[in-house]
Amino acid sequence: MQPYELTLAAAAEEIRARRLSPVELVDSVLARIERTEPHLGAYVTVTAERARLAARNAEHEVAHGRHRGPLHGVPMALKDLIDVNGLPTTASSRVRTGHRANADSTVAARLDAAGAILLGKTHTHEFAFGLTTPQTRNAWDQDRVAGGSSGGSAVAVAAGAATFALGTDTGGSIRVPAALNGVVGLKPTYGLVPRHGVTPLSWSLDHVGPITRTVQDAALVLTVLAGPDPRDPASLPAPAAAPHYRPGPGTDLTGLRVGVPRTHYFDRVHPHVESAVRRALGQLEALGARLVDVDIPMTRYLQATQWGLMVPEAAAYHEHTLRTAPELYQDDVRILLEAGQLMSAGDHLRAQRSRALIRAAWESLLQDVDLIAAPTVPVTAAPADRPALTWPDGTEESVSDAYVRLNAPANITGLPALTVPAGQDPDGLPIGLQLLARPLAEATLLRVGHAYEQTRPALPQLPTPLHS
Amino acid sequence: MQPYELTLAAAAEEIRARRLSPVELVDSVLARIERTEPHLGAYVTVTAERARLAARNAEHEVAHGRHRGPLHGVPMALKDLIDVNGLPTTASSRVRTGHRANADSTVAARLDAAGAILLGKTHTHEFAFGLTTPQTRNAWDQDRVAGGSSGGSAVAVAAGAATFALGTDTGGSIRVPAALNGVVGLKPTYGLVPRHGVTPLSWSLDHVGPITRTVQDAALVLTVLAGPDPRDPASLPAPAAAPHYRPGPGTDLTGLRVGVPRTHYFDRVHPHVESAVRRALGQLEALGARLVDVDIPMTRYLQATQWGLMVPEAAAYHEHTLRTAPELYQDDVRILLEAGQLMSAGDHLRAQRSRALIRAAWESLLQDVDLIAAPTVPVTAAPADRPALTWPDGTEESVSDAYVRLNAPANITGLPALTVPAGQDPDGLPIGLQLLARPLAEATLLRVGHAYEQTRPALPQLPTPLHS
Repeated sequence: MQPYELTLAAAAEEIRARRLSPVELVDSVLARIERTEPHLGAYVTVTAERARLAARNAEHEVAHGRHRGPLHGVPMALKDLIDVNGLPTTASSRVRTGHRANADSTVAARLDAAGAILLGKTHTHEFAFGLTTPQTRNAWDQDRVAGGSSGGSAVAVAAGAATFALGTDTGGSIRVPAALNGVVGLKPTYGLVPRHGVTPLSWSLDHVGPITRTVQDAALVLTVLAGPDPRDPASLPAPAAAPHYRPGPGTDLTGLRVGVPRTHYFDRVHPHVESAVRRALGQLEALGARLVDVDIPMTRYLQATQWGLMVPEAAAYHEHTLRTAPELYQDDVRILLEAGQLMSAGDHLRAQRSRALIRAAWESLLQDVDLIAAPTVPVTAAPADRPALTWPDGTEESVSDAYVRLNAPANITGLPALTVPAGQDPDGLPIGLQLLARPLAEATLLRVGHAYEQTRPALPQLPTPLHS
Repeated sequence: MQPYELTLAAAAEEIRARRLSPVELVDSVLARIERTEPHLGAYVTVTAERARLAARNAEHEVAHGRHRGPLHGVPMALKDLIDVNGLPTTASSRVRTGHRANADSTVAARLDAAGAILLGKTHTHEFAFGLTTPQTRNAWDQDRVAGGSSGGSAVAVAAGAATFALGTDTGGSIRVPAALNGVVGLKPTYGLVPRHGVTPLSWSLDHVGPITRTVQDAALVLTVLAGPDPRDPASLPAPAAAPHYRPGPGTDLTGLRVGVPRTHYFDRVHPHVESAVRRALGQLEALGARLVDVDIPMTRYLQATQWGLMVPEAAAYHEHTLRTAPELYQDDVRILLEAGQLMSAGDHLRAQRSRALIRAAWESLLQDVDLIAAPTVPVTAAPADRPALTWPDGTEESVSDAYVRLNAPANITGLPALTVPAGQDPDGLPIGLQLLARPLAEATLLRVGHAYEQTRPALPQLPTPLHS
């Protein structure tokens, strides 16, 4: 096994025990990037020299007994919405030509303090306003979409081109590409991870979180990212006791009540996705969990609420550039932003009010179960040239709408949600199991996700030519 | 002195000591209503029979040693936006023809449980969307506006036609009519008094609070009104220790830091109002307070923020009736509601964002001082036939804008604000001193207001023909 193939937890253990140097690890991942980038296009920028310098520093620190913790010396990538001092934050957009961040975002600063090593900035669907990330190709089939908007981060982690990465999630943008590329993605509770220095899409729905190869890795990254920062107005206060995210070794889920949606999450879901997720539910039951049928509330209002909040907030952020240089946006994004400028205050208020009702209804739902288990997306990665799906009932749905549909509830409610790989379809494309829990119940999500991951059937590796 | 002239505290003490029966008190106030209503028009409905029945019950209870507290047997009026089971809530509007509430509002239920006796429902500017209350006349000069939107409640309390009353305040609607009629008005902290069963104007700015003759009376009413109710989504949780609102007898303000605005609150203020408020500030200093100059933040954004929040929320509440029966509204209100329907989501978001910034700036301001003291309104009661004022600098300002201007900050920030009478202008029209404090610092406001009230020069009584 090459160093670039290691999970974060395994790499961390090797580095801590001084069996692996951060320099070797970073060199291995940089070589992997050179090999995969021509096929995948995950990165906007690779900061190889900067990474090598940081790796030598980390090697020196670890060799002198100054080990900072599990992220020390581990190479990672940041979605290019996340400011790093001195680097451009391109948002994968021509609008940002000539941009340069003059300070670290909170998450970049926390990763840096923990000793993680930046490899570069990864592609996002332009300004995170889309679900495909057209610059990047799916790690499992280069004719398929990467998913988005954190497509570059998910593909890099899947392909061995980063040991972990960060994404952002406004309507599924961490979970969708993680699911479509067979990796783990965590959208934390709204307000748990500060967004200071991260370009907003829709500030009342935006989240930052990790994309990793395992659930345990997600816990290691969340431990570094979580915690208050008054520069994000939505940042939650620190809890009385520091939370412990890392899952223990056990896989016994006795006593856990897992809600299985009777509504919404299995409607218009591809049979291969449904059967893989039902198998995963059976696995949770085999580990001792009790499956409980639940009805998802207010499903008719989800899409209108998500778009009614997201579109005008995005338009507000882009107001100035939309006026001065609209031609710099890609057509799909510009059209959405212009639609946001036309929305009425009444429609926006309706979305705010229905959000309040949806939140209250989910709060009540989660009094009866500890978590909800469901598919992350209703279909695997779509062909890159196909903008819409046709369902057996004859209805057409845009690929974006299909990918947002099962993810939006966690953005509207702010609830934490985790996606874990749960098998492949017959074309070998990854399928994601989504777990949702109560506010700040990340430890529960991670414990259950880890138990599932330890006991599920083995997953295949990346197909050639990327598998080596 | 007639029973109708008693303060709430004095009436309560007489009733408790069984020197005054609730029946005598209610009869005295009902007789006063008969005498004043032809001149003032404060009431939509007087529920005299119901009040007499309740008075006999209260008399019986007190006589049998079941005294419920200081509100027991005390007659009061409710602004006709506040639901009382079985009575219409007219909102002083033709839109509500045939309306009948089928449950008590939270505040009506709490007053009823405390033994207060409903005299009737008082006029509001239609649906609370205005600052004059045209159906009602100022208690001090019947050619002048009552102020609004809680004009009926303030005039009734000023004229002896209710021992106390409730109003609502979205942009000054408790404080403006209280100041213009020479009585005390308290807008509590946002979320302290539940609004369940109270017709909204703008739910993110609406408050319910008492209008009384003295600060001590306001404390007695607040004690009954305050506390959580989950049926109001903005209701604050109960504090760890029950707050004690009733001010003690002392008037020493040593150690208190009183912020005196250098900006906003003394701009475009009539010289008679300014000099009365400056005298009141001198009085606070004489009691031991330290006056500290402060700069009010973001004053340029106050008006746009207040209207940018209020107008679309009001339009959202009235959406259905505006479509089906717009002709039932008065022109002034219908025009504002229609304007709200035309507002863009972008402008509404701008108002929400500037509210967040204004709140943060006031929080920082109130770290340096314990309260802010300022005028309540920049002019005394305007002639009823004059829609605008002309200031010495030549600018014109609508009477409504002038009355909202100094009140909006407490609605935008949710901070508690109290108005206390502070003298008269040469025409004998009352002037109000406004005190603002930190969230949930009502006890501070009431202590300072009470100390001022105890030590200010005596105020004249209502002019003839109402004075008897």
